[in-house]
Amino acid sequence: MRDKAARTRSRLIRSAATEFAEHGYVRAKLSTIAADAGVSRGALHFHFPKKEALADAVEASAAERFTDVTGDWDESAAQSLSQAVQAFADLYRRDVTFRAGVLLSCEKDRKSTVNLVQRWEEYVTSAVAAAERGSPFSRSGAARHASSAIVAMTVGLAFLWHDNEQWLAESTVSGVWNLLPPLGGRVG
Amino acid sequence: MRDKAARTRSRLIRSAATEFAEHGYVRAKLSTIAADAGVSRGALHFHFPKKEALADAVEASAAERFTDVTGDWDESAAQSLSQAVQAFADLYRRDVTFRAGVLLSCEKDRKSTVNLVQRWEEYVTSAVAAAERGSPFSRSGAARHASSAIVAMTVGLAFLWHDNEQWLAESTVSGVWNLLPPLGGRVG
Repeated sequence: MRDKAARTRSRLIRSAATEFAEHGYVRAKLSTIAADAGVSRGALHFHFPKKEALADAVEASAAERFTDVTGDWDESAAQSLSQAVQAFADLYRRDVTFRAGVLLSCEKDRKSTVNLVQRWEEYVTSAVAAAERGSPFSRSGAARHASSAIVAMTVGLAFLWHDNEQWLAESTVSGVWNLLPPLGGRVG
Repeated sequence: MRDKAARTRSRLIRSAATEFAEHGYVRAKLSTIAADAGVSRGALHFHFPKKEALADAVEASAAERFTDVTGDWDESAAQSLSQAVQAFADLYRRDVTFRAGVLLSCEKDRKSTVNLVQRWEEYVTSAVAAAERGSPFSRSGAARHASSAIVAMTVGLAFLWHDNEQWLAESTVSGVWNLLPPLGGRVG
């Protein structure tokens, strides 16, 4: 029984992610989410008394996936960051729950419980700082600009992807990434 | 009389821009737009029979402003592009009509008559091509990536600005811009 409830819950989260990603938080319809998950409105209400609770669950689920993107860095923070950028792009492209979580983070109409864009910014800032430690690059305040550039670039590519999928193609992401000065000391 | 009609029309476009920028196309309310412009619903309807017509007028008005950003380049395409990036950021920040036009271009719920994001992409691509002509930079296909990077960054910064105005501060935009390889041949 608990298994069945968990499966229903997880189907609802996925349907909600699809609906939120497509129509945004305000316009998302609970009836569509229930129908798409193959459950009654009553069952939806049992698991998620309010739309807000569903959005929170989608964000929490997206945040779990996000942890895979932003694992700890081992030897090279620069290398980890480069992989994280590709992983972020890849996850946004392929995973509707992650995408919905990012989009929900940007909604003005609700208070986000887990702001994924902010988390991404924090991760990038830490990774750039770790990569730049002791390098000549860190002199000029360029580390801060490098973080801003990486966050703006990834968010911009994700946003543009909705219009044309090429924007998050691996070749686009790596081409854009390679234009940035290498992190970790090779820039004077 | 014609002057009065033109002024009313222009007030309606500005109110519509504010409402579209704040709530998006679908949720924007004609009653708010009319009230905000200080005209009756009948007068709004006289000038713009449908919401679609209002959105088209906002886009057209935004496109006019955009022309100032993307003037022809004289001697240095790279220099013009650098100025255009700052001008785009500045206009997005300060001018609600331009902002509304860009946001309307990205709406899935309507067909844009003037897609400003696409126009920006076309401008950037041409300027990068002009800047790179004959330079060693053009060898590697990096010109295409440079265009993608510039478009993604500007769009990303504009998007992030809604959450925190620092993202379009002049120092952020120039800091990020300066990280990109100089256009026009200094990159091997």
